[in-house]
Amino acid sequence: MDKVNLNQKFSLFSEQWSPKIVGELNGQHVKLAKLKGEFVWHKHEQEDELFYVVKGSFKMEYRDRTVEVRENEFLIVPKGVEHKPVAEEEVWVMLFEPASTLNTGNTENAMTKKDLDRL
Amino acid sequence: MDKVNLNQKFSLFSEQWSPKIVGELNGQHVKLAKLKGEFVWHKHEQEDELFYVVKGSFKMEYRDRTVEVRENEFLIVPKGVEHKPVAEEEVWVMLFEPASTLNTGNTENAMTKKDLDRL
Repeated sequence: MDKVNLNQKFSLFSEQWSPKIVGELNGQHVKLAKLKGEFVWHKHEQEDELFYVVKGSFKMEYRDRTVEVRENEFLIVPKGVEHKPVAEEEVWVMLFEPASTLNTGNTENAMTKKDLDRL
Repeated sequence: MDKVNLNQKFSLFSEQWSPKIVGELNGQHVKLAKLKGEFVWHKHEQEDELFYVVKGSFKMEYRDRTVEVRENEFLIVPKGVEHKPVAEEEVWVMLFEPASTLNTGNTENAMTKKDLDRL
């Protein structure tokens, strides 16, 4: 019921590609992440995933096209769709997705994060 | 899979207290609304509700206290909790809540909006 200030939460971590949980509602998590560089191709079999850009911009690569997402824009990746976020410069994003969502979806590798911190 | 630009969507309507659907994921809706003045006291029996401020600020009144929410801040109202948004000046908010959510919750009155537009 208290408010969450995004900039204050972003100031608490510098690690990239490591989502932090900042809210929970209706079985969904609100997460914040700092991204820079290329992520891995993956998909989420059961979960749609929303990326909202708080600061900066990034490109969401799909297998057949690429969408650039800038500040105050969001994009929803439907379940089952392969995607790979790429950020030339660090971008700050807010994610909305089911609490069950694993960052690397159907793959597990060095980028996989489990037991996410709550800020 | 295409991106949504919040300012572009906000430019499409001027009506206050009339949420517009701009995204859907995992049974949840992403809505945009312009608020000014006082809403009605209500609660949602089954749905948690997230308010994120895109532009401006507003006060969320609870029965025992008030929280001011500013740009780049969000607040989650848990299900069952009575609340009343109040905005002295027009505020632009993004809402995340289950698709089943009625804006006036457990009450129906002149402020109630059904069959929301999709932008």
